[in-house]
Amino acid sequence: MEKKFVVGVDVGGQTTKIGVVDQKGEVLAQTVIRSDTYGADAEAFLDALAESIGVCIRSAGKEGQVKGVGVGAPNGNYYTGEVSFAPNLAWAANQSVKFADILSDKLGGLPVTLTNDANAAAMGEMAYGAARGMKNFIMITLGTGVGSGIIIDGKMVYGHDGFAGELGHTTVLRDGRQCGCGKKGCLEAYCSAIGIVRTAREWLDGTDEPSALRSIENFSSKDIYDAAKAGDALALRVFEYTGNILGRSFADFVAFSAPEAIVLFGGLARAREFLYEPMLNAMNDNLLKIWRGKVKILFSQLKESDAAILGASALAWD
Amino acid sequence: MEKKFVVGVDVGGQTTKIGVVDQKGEVLAQTVIRSDTYGADAEAFLDALAESIGVCIRSAGKEGQVKGVGVGAPNGNYYTGEVSFAPNLAWAANQSVKFADILSDKLGGLPVTLTNDANAAAMGEMAYGAARGMKNFIMITLGTGVGSGIIIDGKMVYGHDGFAGELGHTTVLRDGRQCGCGKKGCLEAYCSAIGIVRTAREWLDGTDEPSALRSIENFSSKDIYDAAKAGDALALRVFEYTGNILGRSFADFVAFSAPEAIVLFGGLARAREFLYEPMLNAMNDNLLKIWRGKVKILFSQLKESDAAILGASALAWD
Repeated sequence: MEKKFVVGVDVGGQTTKIGVVDQKGEVLAQTVIRSDTYGADAEAFLDALAESIGVCIRSAGKEGQVKGVGVGAPNGNYYTGEVSFAPNLAWAANQSVKFADILSDKLGGLPVTLTNDANAAAMGEMAYGAARGMKNFIMITLGTGVGSGIIIDGKMVYGHDGFAGELGHTTVLRDGRQCGCGKKGCLEAYCSAIGIVRTAREWLDGTDEPSALRSIENFSSKDIYDAAKAGDALALRVFEYTGNILGRSFADFVAFSAPEAIVLFGGLARAREFLYEPMLNAMNDNLLKIWRGKVKILFSQLKESDAAILGASALAWD
Repeated sequence: MEKKFVVGVDVGGQTTKIGVVDQKGEVLAQTVIRSDTYGADAEAFLDALAESIGVCIRSAGKEGQVKGVGVGAPNGNYYTGEVSFAPNLAWAANQSVKFADILSDKLGGLPVTLTNDANAAAMGEMAYGAARGMKNFIMITLGTGVGSGIIIDGKMVYGHDGFAGELGHTTVLRDGRQCGCGKKGCLEAYCSAIGIVRTAREWLDGTDEPSALRSIENFSSKDIYDAAKAGDALALRVFEYTGNILGRSFADFVAFSAPEAIVLFGGLARAREFLYEPMLNAMNDNLLKIWRGKVKILFSQLKESDAAILGASALAWD
């Protein structure tokens, strides 16, 4: 019998989502387990994961019809199938875990394919979302950090070692803001959820400009969005500044792989109304003439609740 | 009979080099024609080129044994086979020339494959040079301008439109030096032969620092190299500065495609002794930890007189 279903697993710092997916990208059954209650015991986590995958397949009524399991995990390496030194996963924070091999063993040999979360998002967008039918695009995930997945000629770019696509750590400002990675001036230090809070904080601290944000202790990127929605001038300028930096970076990415589109996903991408124009203008202003006006900036078309599972599941089709 | 030979054609602004090449990268016969004596008449140039290719094949004694012709040309597009709006080629400066199709017709249907000169250099390095056996590397050509050819998973990256790999026009300094392309702060504005002359000129004009370069009217990049060789402090610092910018850019390129190596070619790459250390240090200082100390910077291993022909010829093997 042809196997027409796949399982997608999205490993996050607190929870891991599991779903059974069909060829159209419908999630037929899903479940969630904790990722953070196993301490350093990777084996125990993988036991629980394998069991829940089994339960999920049975509850979808698809026993024996699953082609494989695709996993998106922080610091997941496609070539080695390992999750290595992922700071937010206690069981992989100080070691390399042979995630794909161990999970496949526990699932009776079902093929398991692993990659990082941003690559999984790109695969999902290509299989079921905004990039369907595209062979050349770049996925940028704007979340707590900035991740990326690069598709060239219909294939995910993994590079020599499996770690390609770390565009959040390209430099946007020489000797700029300190980034969590240890470098200075990274895109992620400006254009992540954390980055825009830093921008707003710097501007509030450096001026007397009135802003609704002044009354919120420890405001979040969501608070900046809400303030912008309400017409707060400073909050609006924060998005303009952020969109400008993103657009400039996109122009550099286009010079690399000449994609048809840049596709955005993640919490910050919800601020489309404030980011889109400054992004598009800054990108076009910094592109060579051959590309000006020709490269699209698109937003994910996957339902946010399903997107991570769908992205991971897309890996299992190949 | 298996066809064991290919022809490489390197189209330059003044001359066009033609060579018959075997599988080991030996140039068995070669000839040169002018590129700049045909005005806007592309047809006349292509007639002369086809005739010389025929002569070259006959003088190598390989009639009927040639598999195809590979052409490297400014603004050459692999997908369309066209040379379009190439400022330095009078017959293609104001039009798109269906170079590959027309040349193939004139050669009785022999397959003709076209790409730009930097991509051709990358193909040559992979087939016969420093990148033999590599599947992921980035070629940077440091000449009058800065060109690039990107190899991922053993394949040249052409992108959606055939124009991928314009790394000379990624931004190294926001609102920096004016580049010939119309943008500001491009890598090419700093790290080309013209760029380093601009750097030296700016520093000479901005200070009273003594330098051997002060006595040379309209000095060239070669003069800066000679001055550095002779121990001129300013000239040495120009190379250090240039190497630093290159290394920072390489770090961004690594974050994109995780290559095994960056391979350098072109006139400026001859200043290896002055560029290598600042490049390598700046690259490693700006890489994520996963790549630090692991990415090689290599120099072309092709004989400079043959390199352009070899690079173009490598296209014809596929």
